[in-house]
Amino acid sequence: MITKELVQHIYKTTYEDIPESVIWHAKKSLLNWLGVTVGAIHHETIDILLDVTNELSTSEQATILGRNVKTDLLSAVLINGTSSHIFDFDDTHLDTIHHPSGPVAPVIFALGEKYAFSTKELLRAFILGCEVELRISNAVYPSHYQHGYHITPSTGVFGAAIAAGLLLKMDEEQLAMAMGLAGTQSFGLREMFGTMTKPFHPGKAAQNGLMAALLVQKGFTSSTQVLEAERGFFNVYSPKHNVFKVLEDFGEVWELEKNAFKPYACGIVLHPSIDACIQLSEVALPEEVDKIILQVNPYVLELTGKKEPKTGLEGKFSIYHTGAMAFLEREASEDQYQDEKVLASKTIAFREKIKPVANEEVDKDKVEAILVKKDGTSHKVSIEHATGSIENPMTKAMLERKFKKLCKSSLTDEKITQLIESIYQFEQMEFESLINIFN
Amino acid sequence: MITKELVQHIYKTTYEDIPESVIWHAKKSLLNWLGVTVGAIHHETIDILLDVTNELSTSEQATILGRNVKTDLLSAVLINGTSSHIFDFDDTHLDTIHHPSGPVAPVIFALGEKYAFSTKELLRAFILGCEVELRISNAVYPSHYQHGYHITPSTGVFGAAIAAGLLLKMDEEQLAMAMGLAGTQSFGLREMFGTMTKPFHPGKAAQNGLMAALLVQKGFTSSTQVLEAERGFFNVYSPKHNVFKVLEDFGEVWELEKNAFKPYACGIVLHPSIDACIQLSEVALPEEVDKIILQVNPYVLELTGKKEPKTGLEGKFSIYHTGAMAFLEREASEDQYQDEKVLASKTIAFREKIKPVANEEVDKDKVEAILVKKDGTSHKVSIEHATGSIENPMTKAMLERKFKKLCKSSLTDEKITQLIESIYQFEQMEFESLINIFN
Repeated sequence: MITKELVQHIYKTTYEDIPESVIWHAKKSLLNWLGVTVGAIHHETIDILLDVTNELSTSEQATILGRNVKTDLLSAVLINGTSSHIFDFDDTHLDTIHHPSGPVAPVIFALGEKYAFSTKELLRAFILGCEVELRISNAVYPSHYQHGYHITPSTGVFGAAIAAGLLLKMDEEQLAMAMGLAGTQSFGLREMFGTMTKPFHPGKAAQNGLMAALLVQKGFTSSTQVLEAERGFFNVYSPKHNVFKVLEDFGEVWELEKNAFKPYACGIVLHPSIDACIQLSEVALPEEVDKIILQVNPYVLELTGKKEPKTGLEGKFSIYHTGAMAFLEREASEDQYQDEKVLASKTIAFREKIKPVANEEVDKDKVEAILVKKDGTSHKVSIEHATGSIENPMTKAMLERKFKKLCKSSLTDEKITQLIESIYQFEQMEFESLINIFN
Repeated sequence: MITKELVQHIYKTTYEDIPESVIWHAKKSLLNWLGVTVGAIHHETIDILLDVTNELSTSEQATILGRNVKTDLLSAVLINGTSSHIFDFDDTHLDTIHHPSGPVAPVIFALGEKYAFSTKELLRAFILGCEVELRISNAVYPSHYQHGYHITPSTGVFGAAIAAGLLLKMDEEQLAMAMGLAGTQSFGLREMFGTMTKPFHPGKAAQNGLMAALLVQKGFTSSTQVLEAERGFFNVYSPKHNVFKVLEDFGEVWELEKNAFKPYACGIVLHPSIDACIQLSEVALPEEVDKIILQVNPYVLELTGKKEPKTGLEGKFSIYHTGAMAFLEREASEDQYQDEKVLASKTIAFREKIKPVANEEVDKDKVEAILVKKDGTSHKVSIEHATGSIENPMTKAMLERKFKKLCKSSLTDEKITQLIESIYQFEQMEFESLINIFN
């Protein structure tokens, strides 16, 4: 009965039941999601999706965020959801490596634009949609992920359906059926990592979940026990699972509050080294540096040991390039992972000075860094909790800076500022005025 | 490398390589598919899908078969594919309980209508699309099905992508990527059986597969080893599998030739009993009958032992109702499973005379039937191979009769006759003239 119980808990949770701190974390999540979505919206992946969408459909119902074009609802959630995952720079529920906003936020944006939902309704639907996908993730992680599923789409489809279902004013029976129709469409193979199909996953999950809710609202029928049934989601999709996790501390612990934001546009294992190199750039000029020794866990080098990257994407898997950029430019955003940056002679010269050393005794999320100057003096920096971790989260100022950098090539400074303010005051404004900033 | 090898085999198979007997079986499959699709096209399930589609999209690209309305390509394949599975009266690859036309034929029809593909190209794409999904099914059956997946959508998505990819003139690399983008969207839980979500499955598989092909044709990237990869389809979706089956006797054995058609609109386990009761109706009038004893395998009674069905759907799971209808009306089509037929006093009176007996010694696909008259005389009938089995297939005349009954409430007799002729002469005509019969 866990499907119905979960739906009952969701259904009876009002906006007023949600703590202020959760609302604030939801706004930060939306700001981060909007930034990464707008940031990649001119990527080739999106060009192709729009090309096919144009061939299929002519209705203009929801905005492709940052492109000044509208598509039908289902295409919009697919495209915006895909865009948010292209840079691998989106939010992360660290307990399950799930990117919760990807499948849910596009649904909020598209339905918010087409129908006159209040911003409080939209916030509630976003928060509870995330809660559903993350609690289901908690129940199947790590078995489900290790088995080969990309957990963001496979459980995200439930979050998308619930967010849409709440907005469409479904009763509990309908919400359970929307879970069923969404859950039977759960999908996503980790084999796809490294291709355009990976970012397609959260977008498609949003689309499948929204479609499920639209159909059930009109009377489509489905199972109301998709999670627990003998041939349901848990048994079929996850060799091991713990049903108890779904409702554990519901209403007291909010999974969305465990959502972390990446300050740097690369794998999380490099983040401590980036923090260290930025700090070390305070104590020496580039020409004074003899070498920077980075003592890291062997796993870090396994993932990022590429000595001579040739493209921006390869640069993301190079501690040498990344360390050099962090020291030289005090950043590791998409700018630092452009092909020309990776191939610049200045970068190549400095990356020779980055000397990683594998050390079993250093944890995966830490680094011991020593900068040795040509004059023989040295400086040491230890990073215990990298920026963006739960213990050391990105500050409001950092999130705004990230947002501005991501949006700058698509939107004017004035619009960017307006968007930031609109997200902060989300529940006090009309959604229409937010979306109009894009048009 | 099995994904690429399969694609290579498909790519190099020309229309001329396909034996005449396979072409003929493909036409029968298309006729059967078209009949069951048109037959259910006014069902509530389709009303709901069209209702949502209308809210989303306005382009008119492909016909909803039998409804005199057009939608965009993706919605059309979803809706026509769903309709074909509503009555559970579609084709069956008996080795894997797969309904091969469902996910593939809608793609042929929609692309055939929108673009000027030759009917030979369409037939080749249909046959090879079915070959792909059925060969993948052979590799994972029964483990994958027993694990909980509805095999028609989960492997059908590959067939849909390949059929579309061949029509869109993809090269081998693109076909492999289309397999990747389709395969990551593989889905379908058996838990959904008994709800509208079951027929939704083949339609959604057609939609996912077509979308995959459309995107890859424009440059979208995906894995080219979706079947065999460590975290690919076989390992993730099927506890046991036999990769060897994918290419076994390719070009010599055609899986589509193992496709069977149902003469009766109910589960295949009842078909021998229906044959027997129809035969017995030759030897006695209803009022002369004392009882009809049906000796069947216990499994048959387990599935169809409902003594007092109240609805048409329940009637499909009642050997009593079904036997009575077969004797009284010499039929078991949708007509015999209308609620009013199930509740008619004449039916109820006669079903008292149907006396099934469970007998371990009778195979599941056989029946021993004895009609005992009130005058004490009796007549015995044994059915070894029911009508519609591979050994005793439906004749051309039977298929035409089924087609006419299914289409009669949507199309005029003249149009029905034209459609039958068009399917028989498929490769000699323009697809446009076939589809125009609907408009």
